[in-house]
Amino acid sequence: MTTVRPPNVSETHYLRALHEWASIIGEANVLTSADRLSDYADPFAPHPMAKPFAACAVVLPGSVDEIREVLRIARTYGVPLWPVSTGRNFAYGGGAPRLTGSVVLDLKRLNRILEVDETLAYALVEPGVTYFDLHAHLQRRGSKLWVDPAAAGWGSVVGNTLERGFGYTAYGDHAANQCGMEVMLANGEIVRTGMGAIEIGRAWQLYKAGFGPSYDTMFMQSNFGIVTKLGLWLMPEPEAYLIVHVKVPREADLEAAVETLRPLRLDETIRNHAVIEGAIRYAAGVSARTDWYDGPGPMPASAVDEIVRRLDIGWWNVRFALYGASDIVDARFAAARRAFARLPGARIDAQRYARGAVPAGGGDANMAGVPAMSAFRMLDWRGGAGAHVDFSPICPFTGRDALRQYSVAKARLAEYGFDYYGGFTAGERHLHHIVATIFDRDDPRQTDAAADLQRVLMSDARAEGYGVYRTHLATMDFAASQYDFNDGALLRLSETIKDALDPDGILAPGKSGIWPRVWRGKRDRI
Amino acid sequence: MTTVRPPNVSETHYLRALHEWASIIGEANVLTSADRLSDYADPFAPHPMAKPFAACAVVLPGSVDEIREVLRIARTYGVPLWPVSTGRNFAYGGGAPRLTGSVVLDLKRLNRILEVDETLAYALVEPGVTYFDLHAHLQRRGSKLWVDPAAAGWGSVVGNTLERGFGYTAYGDHAANQCGMEVMLANGEIVRTGMGAIEIGRAWQLYKAGFGPSYDTMFMQSNFGIVTKLGLWLMPEPEAYLIVHVKVPREADLEAAVETLRPLRLDETIRNHAVIEGAIRYAAGVSARTDWYDGPGPMPASAVDEIVRRLDIGWWNVRFALYGASDIVDARFAAARRAFARLPGARIDAQRYARGAVPAGGGDANMAGVPAMSAFRMLDWRGGAGAHVDFSPICPFTGRDALRQYSVAKARLAEYGFDYYGGFTAGERHLHHIVATIFDRDDPRQTDAAADLQRVLMSDARAEGYGVYRTHLATMDFAASQYDFNDGALLRLSETIKDALDPDGILAPGKSGIWPRVWRGKRDRI
Repeated sequence: MTTVRPPNVSETHYLRALHEWASIIGEANVLTSADRLSDYADPFAPHPMAKPFAACAVVLPGSVDEIREVLRIARTYGVPLWPVSTGRNFAYGGGAPRLTGSVVLDLKRLNRILEVDETLAYALVEPGVTYFDLHAHLQRRGSKLWVDPAAAGWGSVVGNTLERGFGYTAYGDHAANQCGMEVMLANGEIVRTGMGAIEIGRAWQLYKAGFGPSYDTMFMQSNFGIVTKLGLWLMPEPEAYLIVHVKVPREADLEAAVETLRPLRLDETIRNHAVIEGAIRYAAGVSARTDWYDGPGPMPASAVDEIVRRLDIGWWNVRFALYGASDIVDARFAAARRAFARLPGARIDAQRYARGAVPAGGGDANMAGVPAMSAFRMLDWRGGAGAHVDFSPICPFTGRDALRQYSVAKARLAEYGFDYYGGFTAGERHLHHIVATIFDRDDPRQTDAAADLQRVLMSDARAEGYGVYRTHLATMDFAASQYDFNDGALLRLSETIKDALDPDGILAPGKSGIWPRVWRGKRDRI
Repeated sequence: MTTVRPPNVSETHYLRALHEWASIIGEANVLTSADRLSDYADPFAPHPMAKPFAACAVVLPGSVDEIREVLRIARTYGVPLWPVSTGRNFAYGGGAPRLTGSVVLDLKRLNRILEVDETLAYALVEPGVTYFDLHAHLQRRGSKLWVDPAAAGWGSVVGNTLERGFGYTAYGDHAANQCGMEVMLANGEIVRTGMGAIEIGRAWQLYKAGFGPSYDTMFMQSNFGIVTKLGLWLMPEPEAYLIVHVKVPREADLEAAVETLRPLRLDETIRNHAVIEGAIRYAAGVSARTDWYDGPGPMPASAVDEIVRRLDIGWWNVRFALYGASDIVDARFAAARRAFARLPGARIDAQRYARGAVPAGGGDANMAGVPAMSAFRMLDWRGGAGAHVDFSPICPFTGRDALRQYSVAKARLAEYGFDYYGGFTAGERHLHHIVATIFDRDDPRQTDAAADLQRVLMSDARAEGYGVYRTHLATMDFAASQYDFNDGALLRLSETIKDALDPDGILAPGKSGIWPRVWRGKRDRI
């Protein structure tokens, strides 16, 4: 057993809780050994020495009824639970809890694909279902529906959607394509949202809102309940699609690239989550950093120029897909090509795929609804025990904003000795700007710098009027404190709801900066 | 002064509240005379004799600060408030409150269009702004952005969005195209949702969720707060568009029409909220019921056949728009025509419009982003003091479900002496089925039958697994009780949140069936 213990719980009570859990879900599903718990440590922990965010145990219930019992016992003894779908929230903390000594409630044994409706194009899944699982299931049944994969195909569909992850197809906004949930509240009560409250109804996965207030988005990035089932809309396989790569030559071309992309997104020429990635991120997919630079500090401009030249890529690389009937894909490509051809020096390549054909590269395959793991290649970029932590501000969809966020972040990264390893993913009116700080976990100097840097990047962004959409456990309080309109009214609203729904403060204390009453005010000591 | 009084409030306290309100917002903005209050009675009240849902007074604050003061005084004396944006929620109760004796909080004086961003295609408006206002504002500044109008152009943009109204263009799902709110909670605290919590931020109207749980949809159809500002996305005017009318000859063709429409919606050939309307609804736009039938009971099939023949329309009439670049519109029309041409006897007409051109008819104009009032023509259909009440179930987007809902409703309407006056509006995976019961308010037999009928229609629907998305004040409790999974867990969740956010039970008691603690259990006596 690890030496970590739930805070504010006596040894006797904790042991009793473990015993009662084991009696209900089985000894094998209550993990307490340091060895087993290591799977739930932050895989990319920037501070391997300090070991914050350590679980004391993991419980793995096998059904909704077992979750209810686990919860009941947790309430009885006051043991905080940290629910995860499968714990693959890498770069943001993995399966580790915000509050050290929490028990991870891992839902991966609930892994049924409960329904796929081919006609109405949706699925209903449990938290343990991964993108690989759902994709394989669809393939097996000869479905004409696509999943929209997250960057890492091994991730949970439910988990990624709840964290507001995004993908690559026209259904890339995972939260927007979610429809209907089953949620267990802290008191053990099961709620079905939207039309799911019509028992034996026919529209749970068809119409989001239902009647009266709608709650699905309140259960995202929150600690108000445990999502046990989730509906998602699936994209019908298009007749044809075209994957387009645009290479723009200069660093400052980011501004023009974004200005070109926005009208194409707004007029629906491009319907997918187009990506604009920097040369270094592109290079990490096909090479190691030492191939280009081995000196101290960040890569010099000359090394990036060499990457661009030798790999024959752009300083910025735009990648998007066009879907639809064959003639519509043609018309869309003509419009997109016209627009991007106006950028001086832009080179445009397009590859056409008929229904059923799948591109070779992981990134392009994602745009055809095929999950991959290629995003993990970045871990080998810097060498050593590769890890990364992500700074993820929302960027208004203008060239000026994108260039500003990029320039400020790049300068700050350089100051801390890191390269700009990032890119933008295009929503409709915003860009997700994702900046990975890649470091060697075994190098204390790098890990310290990476950790310190995150707050500085966030402060820089905040000063310009930007906020992050998601963050690591270590910076959740900091991120929440940046959303400070009217002296933090939004967080107070969350706290009021938290106290009403979870008066014992059992569920995920500290998630997204929301602490239950019992922990509030103590957060500096946690 | 009317004789209606706030329940559970002494005469002295009520008069004090009125006095204090007047001292803050001005005498002219506190209405108590029967004459002035008549504007806030349900305009289509099915029971004009019984007068439930009567306000005792109306207050019209002119600013957010005045709303806060109005609220403070209401809390002090325990006077329930019924917030309305402008009170145009016709067919569902207009500006009338659920709880008799509530004071209507009319926000129509807050009528500023705070921002229109031409580049990022959004607006930020106050509750008093109507679709006509916003459209005129865009026209005046030569904007290339469209509004998506509600059926009646005089309605409030905020009000319609909060009630989850829907329109006619590709932005027809008003709730889905909402982005960012400012909300005053019952304690007077102002919350800005999503990225709005970044003070002086740059993405309030660009990215919906922000960081942590997201609340916008919780403030829709609810009584958890007063929405004082609302962001909405605006559709960029397309290069060209085509409005298509498809007439299908037989009653039973509804099934095939829906089956044809669904794949075109799902593959994005059709992006707007296509409409399928019955012959009678079509006829009401151009004629009176007595032109066709003047006997007792519902119109016989022969009269409907005559409508179809003489007006040269379909038994069902499908209407949709295709937007985009000129060649994309052509390609989409080719696909849609191919699909509908497979329906035996279908006739397809299309009218092409270049950028800036506006169709003549109100319904078609709506599809080009132009608000109209043509929907009100139905009131003259039956003669007398025309009124209607709407039964609005969500229908799964299948021909089988649509035909089933139609058949069951039509039979029940006939039993009560009414025609089937209805149609379907196409979301992505659901249809809004709207069935208007049109009656003469001066005919007690008709008004009684119309009122009784609504519960019967709802019960019929519930037995088949369907629920309504919206309903009249008189059936809010009934509708909420139909969403009964796990013994009403969803409503209990709403009640828990209501009590946490509004412990005094001041805001809109009874809205969507949600009663604050003080009124709970007493609902049968209200």
